[in-house]
Amino acid sequence: MKPLKVALLGCGVVGTQVIRLMHDQAADLAARIGAPLELAGVAVRRLGRKRDVEIDPALFTTDAEALVTRDDVDIVIEVIGGIEPARTLIVSALSRGKSVVTANKALLAEDGATLHEAARKGNGDLYFEASVAGAIPLLRPLRESLAGDHVKRVLGIVNGTTNYILDKMDTTGASFTDALEEAQTLGYAEADPTADVEGFDAAAKAAILAGLAFHSRVTAADVHREGITEITATDVASAKAMGYVIKLLAICARSDDGRSFGVRVHPAMIPRTHPLAGVREAYNAVFVEAESAGQLMFYGKGAGGAPTASAVLGDLVAVARNRLAGTRGPEESTYADLSAHPMGDTVTRCHVALDVADKPGVLARVAELFAKHDVSIQTVRQEGHGDDAQLVIVTHRATDAALSATMEELRDLDIVRAVASVMRVEGDD
Amino acid sequence: MKPLKVALLGCGVVGTQVIRLMHDQAADLAARIGAPLELAGVAVRRLGRKRDVEIDPALFTTDAEALVTRDDVDIVIEVIGGIEPARTLIVSALSRGKSVVTANKALLAEDGATLHEAARKGNGDLYFEASVAGAIPLLRPLRESLAGDHVKRVLGIVNGTTNYILDKMDTTGASFTDALEEAQTLGYAEADPTADVEGFDAAAKAAILAGLAFHSRVTAADVHREGITEITATDVASAKAMGYVIKLLAICARSDDGRSFGVRVHPAMIPRTHPLAGVREAYNAVFVEAESAGQLMFYGKGAGGAPTASAVLGDLVAVARNRLAGTRGPEESTYADLSAHPMGDTVTRCHVALDVADKPGVLARVAELFAKHDVSIQTVRQEGHGDDAQLVIVTHRATDAALSATMEELRDLDIVRAVASVMRVEGDD
Repeated sequence: MKPLKVALLGCGVVGTQVIRLMHDQAADLAARIGAPLELAGVAVRRLGRKRDVEIDPALFTTDAEALVTRDDVDIVIEVIGGIEPARTLIVSALSRGKSVVTANKALLAEDGATLHEAARKGNGDLYFEASVAGAIPLLRPLRESLAGDHVKRVLGIVNGTTNYILDKMDTTGASFTDALEEAQTLGYAEADPTADVEGFDAAAKAAILAGLAFHSRVTAADVHREGITEITATDVASAKAMGYVIKLLAICARSDDGRSFGVRVHPAMIPRTHPLAGVREAYNAVFVEAESAGQLMFYGKGAGGAPTASAVLGDLVAVARNRLAGTRGPEESTYADLSAHPMGDTVTRCHVALDVADKPGVLARVAELFAKHDVSIQTVRQEGHGDDAQLVIVTHRATDAALSATMEELRDLDIVRAVASVMRVEGDD
Repeated sequence: MKPLKVALLGCGVVGTQVIRLMHDQAADLAARIGAPLELAGVAVRRLGRKRDVEIDPALFTTDAEALVTRDDVDIVIEVIGGIEPARTLIVSALSRGKSVVTANKALLAEDGATLHEAARKGNGDLYFEASVAGAIPLLRPLRESLAGDHVKRVLGIVNGTTNYILDKMDTTGASFTDALEEAQTLGYAEADPTADVEGFDAAAKAAILAGLAFHSRVTAADVHREGITEITATDVASAKAMGYVIKLLAICARSDDGRSFGVRVHPAMIPRTHPLAGVREAYNAVFVEAESAGQLMFYGKGAGGAPTASAVLGDLVAVARNRLAGTRGPEESTYADLSAHPMGDTVTRCHVALDVADKPGVLARVAELFAKHDVSIQTVRQEGHGDDAQLVIVTHRATDAALSATMEELRDLDIVRAVASVMRVEGDD
């Protein structure tokens, strides 16, 4: 059989693993695809760098555009990341009828529509399993296995760096800064950790997941995003004392009437008995709740060279098979055309700790304020006395707008000395 | 668009849910497929039975063969179960170029080769996601997402009935008989529970999983099978005391040299800290260990009408899309052509409790016997005194043959009054 030629864009942590696997598993891949794969070239920013791969140096090029438009190239793998030049290169390749496998969550969440449109026009495949939750098969199950079901909610831990940091804070009592520093030392966090700790990475993934789950077009701009930089050791400890753990969650949920959905990334308290509470270190796990299937969970390594390369290779086999069969995989599905509702419309619950004056009537005043905003209280507990008096309140479900308005007014209440912490509560409904 | 016509074989728990979903989600399914689906007929054993579906009674027929061979039928869904007439009907349909979606694990494990061959010749699809672990997307991830990786091991709980029984025994201290009775009352176990409690159902699923994981042909006859009927409340309690829980596991593992594999279904002790230990009631969960992806876990409802129907519908959408595109999904992949090795070659660990005479030299004699068989001991503990003296031993990894031979000789040792329990230990390597 004539080999299928593969162009690789990027030769970093993931790219080198892709090359290694294409080499080590060449015979298996050929048998599974029905034709051998051949590496046509590897686009890099700089030549002559020492790289951890054994391939013909002549395969390296700095001219990515020339590589992806070569007539003999069938499939392009993009693992550069970022918006440009990735977008231009992918569109170039797709426009020429090539199939593309990408791990680029940021680009898909920013401008997936352009890529999908180019794939449709060029009649090629655009696969991106590696863009969310690394090695965990998640997009294909959503896109194909659950194609006959009605997905109600996707809720998960999709960023390993922040999970590592929060896990360290939970197990050792470390501050955010110390835990981040440890994560950086161990290579779990980058020198500039903004994309992870501010939730940008998770938000991009949430947008991709919501688009697939709800058959609609979703971009990063639709995602309400809060990071973990404000989480203190005290927040973590008081969650722990109540039997909760703080996780950075990505949540995509249909509204009750099914006519819109919410997409959000923020830290939340979940009960320690919840399966996501047991997701340690840099692991990822995602719950999918569908009408007929019920609750499903997917767990595994969400990042790293080899796990991400595994997902890339799975897609590579699929698009290669499709090319041999002269067909394409499932297209982007946006027929439902639902929109994201504002965060204020999202229904959630809240944990709030108030430093209060320790005198009769305080609880009544606080309770009255919650009632005014139609927020009902599930539990309230007073801790400490005198100047240390603290009211710890957990609400029932209410809109985020009502909860926010309540918190706002609480800050102005004379009997409240300070709102010590506010955190959404998820996973026990 | 011209509708795709679907014939349904069987109208039991799963079949009625398939009909309901095809009706309730008709618009979504049409949008996702690109053409509407139309129910062409439903084959049942007896007409006139009251059924929980609202469809035109004229669609029911007892002539399944005539239904699956009708020229206008595009896709056949088989949810009758059992070997015949399911096999004949599926082969009839496939031979006429129709695509088939089936949930029939027993048939696939008994004679999958015949079905796959018919699909190949007829140029149609044979999809069977629902045959293993109900709603949990597991076969598609193995077959497609991990197509670029090297699967080393699949280990999981794939039978909900036995998990329900073992979970009850663990949480309430009930005997096997009482727990089974409760499972039957609640509808988790059938009147004749043999297929579940003797491990036949799990063994069929293990054969299917091993075939996909190792790209080889595997049948139920290749699976070493032990059920849970011999498990006593004492076994469960003593596992609990040691921090273990007993689960019925399906394990497919490559040999260390990669040239063969073992497939087995048997009860085993796993550490309470292992994620599978937390799988309660009738839930299923499967670990997949691949070279690059690392450890992945899939969790969800492994049985039931709606969850199984969700998996059937996912496959239905896939084969319908393939028909419209004039293509087929991935074929059976058996190129690796590995064989299952005998159970004796499998490497595992053992927990054994011995009622012994309480006198000096007993441990030395016992230890000597283990050493003779090259089985090294990890921990040994004496419990009780005098006539109640018991030695509880956990071994290191050894071949099952060596472990069995050791147990055999222990029974004959004069200082051993009885081998109180023997159980394999998994999940802490």
